[in-house]
Amino acid sequence: MDQQHRGAHASRSAGRDARRAARGNKRAGKLPYITRRLPVVELLSREALEIIEHNAETILEEIGVEFRRDPESLRLWRGAGADVRGERVHIPRGLARALLRSAPREFMLHARNPERNVRFGGDATVFSPVGGPPFVTDLDRGRRYGTLEDLENFIKLAHVAPAIHFSGGTAVEPMDIAPGKRHLDVMYAYFRLSDQGCEATPETPGHAADAVRMAELLFGEQFVDQHVVVLGNINSNSPLTFDGRMLGALREFAAHNQGTIVVPAVLAGAMGPVTAAGCMAEVLAETLAGMALTQIVRPGAPVIMGSFVGAVSMRTGAPTFGTPEATQMIFATAQLARRLGVPCRSGGSLCSSKVADAQAAYESAHTLLPTLLAGVNLVTHAAGWLEGGLVSGYEKFVMDVDQLAMMQVLAAGMDMSERGQALDAIREVGPGGHFLGCAHTQANFETAFYQSTIADYSSFEQWSTEGRTTAEQRANQVWKKMLAEYEDPGLDPARDEALLAYLAQRKVVLTDSVEEE
Amino acid sequence: MDQQHRGAHASRSAGRDARRAARGNKRAGKLPYITRRLPVVELLSREALEIIEHNAETILEEIGVEFRRDPESLRLWRGAGADVRGERVHIPRGLARALLRSAPREFMLHARNPERNVRFGGDATVFSPVGGPPFVTDLDRGRRYGTLEDLENFIKLAHVAPAIHFSGGTAVEPMDIAPGKRHLDVMYAYFRLSDQGCEATPETPGHAADAVRMAELLFGEQFVDQHVVVLGNINSNSPLTFDGRMLGALREFAAHNQGTIVVPAVLAGAMGPVTAAGCMAEVLAETLAGMALTQIVRPGAPVIMGSFVGAVSMRTGAPTFGTPEATQMIFATAQLARRLGVPCRSGGSLCSSKVADAQAAYESAHTLLPTLLAGVNLVTHAAGWLEGGLVSGYEKFVMDVDQLAMMQVLAAGMDMSERGQALDAIREVGPGGHFLGCAHTQANFETAFYQSTIADYSSFEQWSTEGRTTAEQRANQVWKKMLAEYEDPGLDPARDEALLAYLAQRKVVLTDSVEEE
Repeated sequence: MDQQHRGAHASRSAGRDARRAARGNKRAGKLPYITRRLPVVELLSREALEIIEHNAETILEEIGVEFRRDPESLRLWRGAGADVRGERVHIPRGLARALLRSAPREFMLHARNPERNVRFGGDATVFSPVGGPPFVTDLDRGRRYGTLEDLENFIKLAHVAPAIHFSGGTAVEPMDIAPGKRHLDVMYAYFRLSDQGCEATPETPGHAADAVRMAELLFGEQFVDQHVVVLGNINSNSPLTFDGRMLGALREFAAHNQGTIVVPAVLAGAMGPVTAAGCMAEVLAETLAGMALTQIVRPGAPVIMGSFVGAVSMRTGAPTFGTPEATQMIFATAQLARRLGVPCRSGGSLCSSKVADAQAAYESAHTLLPTLLAGVNLVTHAAGWLEGGLVSGYEKFVMDVDQLAMMQVLAAGMDMSERGQALDAIREVGPGGHFLGCAHTQANFETAFYQSTIADYSSFEQWSTEGRTTAEQRANQVWKKMLAEYEDPGLDPARDEALLAYLAQRKVVLTDSVEEE
Repeated sequence: MDQQHRGAHASRSAGRDARRAARGNKRAGKLPYITRRLPVVELLSREALEIIEHNAETILEEIGVEFRRDPESLRLWRGAGADVRGERVHIPRGLARALLRSAPREFMLHARNPERNVRFGGDATVFSPVGGPPFVTDLDRGRRYGTLEDLENFIKLAHVAPAIHFSGGTAVEPMDIAPGKRHLDVMYAYFRLSDQGCEATPETPGHAADAVRMAELLFGEQFVDQHVVVLGNINSNSPLTFDGRMLGALREFAAHNQGTIVVPAVLAGAMGPVTAAGCMAEVLAETLAGMALTQIVRPGAPVIMGSFVGAVSMRTGAPTFGTPEATQMIFATAQLARRLGVPCRSGGSLCSSKVADAQAAYESAHTLLPTLLAGVNLVTHAAGWLEGGLVSGYEKFVMDVDQLAMMQVLAAGMDMSERGQALDAIREVGPGGHFLGCAHTQANFETAFYQSTIADYSSFEQWSTEGRTTAEQRANQVWKKMLAEYEDPGLDPARDEALLAYLAQRKVVLTDSVEEE
């Protein structure tokens, strides 16, 4: 047993460093992406996973997937051995999985600050903020359309928040900019305001090409061809459909060796059946089809299996999150991706609530904790999500990043070093004593526990004197403080100029509305 | 693979029934206790558990545990082979564990309605409400001392709530009754107002004797000697101390073959070291000592290993919950109990928040979900807990029981039957379709998903029209509705009379203040 003690001590020293880094967030500032020291939770049995995989292959072969308005995709699929009838692609059992063998099990995304590089896959977990909402809300100004200023604020908050490892993409739609040109300002804001990595959310192949071109201006063409510097988020139109715009964007990213996330949005009862096992077979079929296409375009192109899962209320048809079915699907997604050997994106801090109240927190926590335990690699929408994704919330953002920091401590595992075992402390204090003053507590005082930025632990009397605030009200102060603390990471003037010149040039060419292919 | 399909279908039919029961809560009313169809999550490695176990035995042998003001306990320990020096009992390595071998791995607690019997241990999970707070709060009347009327209300709410399987004990202290006589009214309220099983929270051996005697009046002496009808909650005074009152109560329960829960309250940094591994060694040592004593008193007496875990804020010294350390300790407790072969009590819906806001929900969810995944058998404080256990909240109670019902669905596992696989639905709808109108959705419409009683899924516009309520405000309506729906389960008049006569007789004998031994 003493042997074991020593063994544990040695093998866990890396874990201790991770925990120290996680705990010492006040001094260390940003935290590195998570290298998990927890076992992954395998919620579904192997038998259940095999049934889902079998059904996904049945769907691919017998029902097929529509690749709409993109003859090039159909041509590629035909060449790869699929049975293409019109726009319906029937993929023989096992073909998509075989094609996917060339995809990397894990890959690095390079940020312009190398310390902010993130790894996708394996034992890595990366937290990324909300993406996509057209509205924003905060306690001062209420719910309103998002603007470029709001987007910039969310990028800054993500830059400052210790446990946000990756900036994500389009934290809020800048509705004050014409839709046809918006993607340029969005991409520029991410590249300019933070040195973390980021994501493009292309709506057309042209958007994707602009994102890749801007990345080349920032990183250099040769670097981009050899390194992943941007992820492209590719949504399918569930059930079992990809449209031409998304397909073009997918091909653009894959051809340039940039990462893609193939992610169906399946709400059980709407875009999928009312059962989790049925939805997962559909999700797996869709992602297999989309991910395999990236490998036909360029074998070895990095790709992430995504699932965005929830259910619709059978009463109102509205999306619901944090339900048991969604929890099961998050675990299932991570398990299926591991069996496929590709990184996984799922979960987040999803909720249906309109405000950052208890409903929002219950739903978000019941999404986030499963996400971490499942071993999801890229956690999009990890902070700021409200109202089923219609709204990015300032208060919700900082409440969520507080939870993310706690998840990062949890992921570091239990400290089994001598410090963690604390046997001397127990000896020193003895029966009936108190640990606050003992030597061990004093030595570990500052780094003992993560200090929540949001939670109030004061007495009822003190809390009453101080205005009986809710978590949401305290969060209102926190995001303002974080914005005030933001420091411009700077950008090489030549590159900045090149980016701005590209923007100006493209804005002359593009129309205000989104181009049709 | 087809073979597997059929196998899965057959083996999961029981799971489907459980899921149906869980989903159909509106019609079925009360849910049976949970028989888990999820794997337990083993968060700690075997190596880590062995270190904790080794350290616990070191603590028992070298440091020892104080058994204060109870010569009978010291006599029993001496007889069992411990090294007793004054009130300090040094328990040789392995002795406590060996004594505990006679304890049952699982046992049944009999309620006066046999349909409400609950099983503790194995794959069973039982949800039980908050216990112990002196205060109550609701949105109408605010925070105030609890009364007998409040206690009765919480017993009624627990009786009505579908996913509360066991009434627990002293949901709120009736501060309007003299402390020396209070336990009689509390016990009577539980026995009279609900036909679910319940718990006694004795502060003295006399309280414990009264609880057992009242149970005998309700169930019959012979039945009580052969069956567990009440649990006694036995708190140690951490670190490593039991006081005479608790020890007397423990011996009383064990002697009568009633169940005990031996539960240290260890907040890391106060009653335990600032590390999770240190606290767990202490918790294990304390529970081993207390549980082993039950077996010395009466081999085979049912006993549950409890842990109530949290941490103190290093800034204010106040208790904190829902933190990563607490989450780890819940998983560890369940794992250690499984290795010991005794049922386990831990977790709940713990929080520090003064109100049922997002802080309360985040903290509660990060306690509850680990509790379920860890495979905890008895979940005390699963509903209504606020402010570190000082307050029982009416709104919090109904918000929590909504979450408990979802946990019950989660515990039923993923439906892998043909219905769950839903391949026909995917065929019927095909690429680009919608599932709402398909035959499979129509057939499973009513039982598809659990319907939250608290969450609001309406549009922003509708929600605005309806007063922009928070979850807490909606919960205020729900508990009133639940109280209105309460139906008296009735009680055999002869037994009721006997209980009331006992109460009257004891109240003449007892003084207003709690008896000293």
